[in-house]
Amino acid sequence: MTDEVILLDYWPSMFGMGTTKIALAEKGVAYEYKETDPRVKTSLLIETNPIHKKIPVLIHKGKQICEPLIQLEYIDEVWSDTYPILPSDPYQKAQARFWGAFIDKKFYDPSWKVWGTTGEEQVTAKKELLEHFKTLETELGDKTYYGGDVFGFVDIALMGYYSWFKAIEKFGEFSIEAEFPKLTQWTKRCLERDSVVNSLADSDKIVEYAYVLRRKLGAE
Amino acid sequence: MTDEVILLDYWPSMFGMGTTKIALAEKGVAYEYKETDPRVKTSLLIETNPIHKKIPVLIHKGKQICEPLIQLEYIDEVWSDTYPILPSDPYQKAQARFWGAFIDKKFYDPSWKVWGTTGEEQVTAKKELLEHFKTLETELGDKTYYGGDVFGFVDIALMGYYSWFKAIEKFGEFSIEAEFPKLTQWTKRCLERDSVVNSLADSDKIVEYAYVLRRKLGAE
Repeated sequence: MTDEVILLDYWPSMFGMGTTKIALAEKGVAYEYKETDPRVKTSLLIETNPIHKKIPVLIHKGKQICEPLIQLEYIDEVWSDTYPILPSDPYQKAQARFWGAFIDKKFYDPSWKVWGTTGEEQVTAKKELLEHFKTLETELGDKTYYGGDVFGFVDIALMGYYSWFKAIEKFGEFSIEAEFPKLTQWTKRCLERDSVVNSLADSDKIVEYAYVLRRKLGAE
Repeated sequence: MTDEVILLDYWPSMFGMGTTKIALAEKGVAYEYKETDPRVKTSLLIETNPIHKKIPVLIHKGKQICEPLIQLEYIDEVWSDTYPILPSDPYQKAQARFWGAFIDKKFYDPSWKVWGTTGEEQVTAKKELLEHFKTLETELGDKTYYGGDVFGFVDIALMGYYSWFKAIEKFGEFSIEAEFPKLTQWTKRCLERDSVVNSLADSDKIVEYAYVLRRKLGAE
């Protein structure tokens, strides 16, 4: 058992993609990256996430931690002497967890349906997703980041989905910039951070990848 | 703004019912209980949980905390000098959070479908729910509680659903005792605690309540 940190992730994953990478980068934690297509159930994936068999999986000192938001909490607790991800005040922390859970529970399903389905299913998903974007735009308001002045937990959780925004806009036929100006300015501020820009996949490659998946899903 | 603690909850709620009450009881925190039927969108419910409009809502010093698992974390942090709900070790904490999230995400939907639907929908839900029970039976193994020797986070999260177990067994036509002996012994151990037994609704009343809901849902 060593002190090493290993991350199993998959470059175009929508499931919290980038989230854990951003947190590790903010903390300055070096890690070994293992590209892991979750559709190929490798023995390492099955062994380290036997319940969900999903990425990302964080392995630290030979022990696995699953689920992006739980990984954020773990990273913040273990490397507590560097950049704080969660606020220290219990109420502010509860608020951060609330919005993290909102993104975790509400975003994935309508997002993939916007680029991966057609017809009524796509229309319903788009409506739902736009409502969630609106909720997040309202919650952000005139704050710099979701927690206030400091980049943290909710920003990391939401920026984990950023690489897919362009694909969602393209297949959903809407513009985040036109409809959600505050969110747009916020993404620009987040993208100024090395931790963010170095952790995310290229949006254009994600669009190409979404085209391939759409065909596989029969949506072309 | 006072130091008072208020809990908006609804006696037969399946959504984490009992969870927050058990935690407050373990901590010895006195609170004002406000019975709140979530189908009646009272101004207090809308004001304190504007995003989900669901119970339970915990109000402390005039500020609201929503979602049962987030409430558990908050209660553990604010009243940190009494009974600990989460372990202090980051890895053990991550494990507790993982199983809490598993229960939070996986249990509600198949549970209500077992007592609230019929035919194929009910059959599918029952199969799914039994798989989840099996997963939880395996995870428990020969441990006394989910975290090991000490009653804590995962025990509280799962016992929040206990009042509904009888209704689920009745309409799902299966026996937890016959199929999941370890889980059964575990529930008996948990029910020895005052914090648990005083926080849960009467299982027979829940069965009666489920009959009423089934009729409303057209499942009778």
